Amino acid sequence: MSLDAIPVHVINTPPAEPGLSGNALPLLREISELLRHLLETGATGTIDLSALPLTPADLEWLQDKLGEGEIAVTLQANGESTLNETACSGVWWVVHRNTQGAVTTQFIEVAWVPELVKAHPQDVKIGQESLELLISDL
Amino acid sequence: MSLDAIPVHVINTPPAEPGLSGNALPLLREISELLRHLLETGATGTIDLSALPLTPADLEWLQDKLGEGEIAVTLQANGESTLNETACSGVWWVVHRNTQGAVTTQFIEVAWVPELVKAHPQDVKIGQESLELLISDL
Repeated sequence: MSLDAIPVHVINTPPAEPGLSGNALPLLREISELLRHLLETGATGTIDLSALPLTPADLEWLQDKLGEGEIAVTLQANGESTLNETACSGVWWVVHRNTQGAVTTQFIEVAWVPELVKAHPQDVKIGQESLELLISDL
Repeated sequence: MSLDAIPVHVINTPPAEPGLSGNALPLLREISELLRHLLETGATGTIDLSALPLTPADLEWLQDKLGEGEIAVTLQANGESTLNETACSGVWWVVHRNTQGAVTTQFIEVAWVPELVKAHPQDVKIGQESLELLISDL
């Protein structure tokens, strides 16, 4: 029997990505469940990334898998927050920074729109009253 | 009777601001009405600034009176759109630009959140299905 007759199967096992803890994939499953829940009941959900044992590589992997969306929100209030839509509509990547620019918390928010972007009735009422005053002074 | 006995009233009439057409003040009143309507009924409203006879000075005056808020949204879709909260919570200044960066339309939107920022159920459903596929391939 010549060597040529021995069948060779090449199995491509991808190299394990360095720095991955294995905690990111379950998160992706959880996000998918939260999306299903949003669609079925309208209920929103958040995952506090800062509270989980995730490596920088895990976060990068997760960000890569979710992709970039079309909408980017910045909020200036005691430091800058960014609330960026991912390529998965309804999944928002939320980062809060302090006044020095350091990341304080990081969330995944699954919602039609991030809670922080919505105007609150009490604030709208105050604004409307100020506007009335301003108009009466003109 | 001496001149000193004649009462003198100084009336301060502010100089008319150059370039103002007089169309901006009624708009401010309309915005206030739309805010009241939002608070009472939840109904949103828009004013198409591009369709009104407003001068650049009018727009500047209006922007100055409404002030700057904490939230700035950018949306990338066939050109950049900006949806910026004004200092009046619930009043959003919306500018759409084409791919060359030229302003195509400009709106005032009175709403809890600009319509364009909300994820739509159909898109969320598509995203959730893609995510499921992606997970099953991992």
